[in-house]
Amino acid sequence: MCPHALIPFKLVNPKTRLSCVLSQEEREAFARAMLEDVIHAIKDANCSPVIVGTELFDSENVQITVSDADLNQTLNSILPQSVGEILIIMADLPLASAEAIRRVTATKADLAIVPGRGGGSNVIYIKEPTRFHVDYYGMSFLKHVKIAQDAGLSCEVIDSFRLHTDIDEKEDLVELLIHGSGRSRAYLEELGFVLSVEKGRVGISRKPEKTEAA
Amino acid sequence: MCPHALIPFKLVNPKTRLSCVLSQEEREAFARAMLEDVIHAIKDANCSPVIVGTELFDSENVQITVSDADLNQTLNSILPQSVGEILIIMADLPLASAEAIRRVTATKADLAIVPGRGGGSNVIYIKEPTRFHVDYYGMSFLKHVKIAQDAGLSCEVIDSFRLHTDIDEKEDLVELLIHGSGRSRAYLEELGFVLSVEKGRVGISRKPEKTEAA
Repeated sequence: MCPHALIPFKLVNPKTRLSCVLSQEEREAFARAMLEDVIHAIKDANCSPVIVGTELFDSENVQITVSDADLNQTLNSILPQSVGEILIIMADLPLASAEAIRRVTATKADLAIVPGRGGGSNVIYIKEPTRFHVDYYGMSFLKHVKIAQDAGLSCEVIDSFRLHTDIDEKEDLVELLIHGSGRSRAYLEELGFVLSVEKGRVGISRKPEKTEAA
Repeated sequence: MCPHALIPFKLVNPKTRLSCVLSQEEREAFARAMLEDVIHAIKDANCSPVIVGTELFDSENVQITVSDADLNQTLNSILPQSVGEILIIMADLPLASAEAIRRVTATKADLAIVPGRGGGSNVIYIKEPTRFHVDYYGMSFLKHVKIAQDAGLSCEVIDSFRLHTDIDEKEDLVELLIHGSGRSRAYLEELGFVLSVEKGRVGISRKPEKTEAA
């Protein structure tokens, strides 16, 4: 009734493709804020979050599983031991909503996937984890569809832009400023990020830091 | 019961941001193929397509409304005269599915919008067109939400990556090659486009043209 939601999370130096607009310290705080938004949506959807990380940190009552191994090894050691359904959801989905997650867990298929932009697998929901294994990186969406097929598992692709929109690059921040409502959007605004339109295209810009006097 | 679906369409020199990978002739054929896919989904969703174009062309039994005016003027002259619901859907959404369109037209709100990537409005569904007007370009999604609000119309945002994914740039072709199944995906494949993975990121490349002997 209350599936575990595994959330892979990198604490140190995450989101390097945002280095052009955020310092390492800011990227670490931003990644934590996105994680918080994802956890919020997961709890609202009645799932039980478990952070899958490479080190321990203060995660405010959310369970952490720590592993040195890479993402695939780590998850593939957890899945065979799991009883009951498992949701695997990425930590960089700050637009995640409980409603979207519920559409995933409501699937009638054996497996549900939400593709990420560029062929990734942002969310995977597996009813019988012992019959599946993951293979992230590269075109993982197509790989996961094939793994399901080879295992004789039916697979539904869930049509959600909120779960499709992973935040990797500067352009992705536009989506967060337009559609976000949680901690990570607030953090971007605290840093001075605003939407801007140039030559008809929407982008972001960062206002100079406020001075003490202002 | 069968809402009109207006599809703005540019016949000559469309999709200029794809010039880096497609010639003008190819872009025109590609835009036609995407239009075909959108019309297919619209008909499957029991809506009645009407192309809103700047010139007449052979559109295989689909009605065309021709206007010299810009998109906003054209649509804002059509809306006040419309009886019954109107769907406005962009022609560059080759991942559109009947199921996603039905989620839009099933809204209980006065208005439903599917945001495009970068703040656009890919689909707008209006139950009482005389009470609404459009304002495309720039951050049109936020503008349309405000227009609805100012008119006292309730507005639902529909969460669909299939309708969110407009094809404007080279990177967008990746989505079409992964998730598409219609005419426009087939056309890209005919041109020799394939998915490729470089440094862990998914992109596209174009094979050299086949020779007669091959």
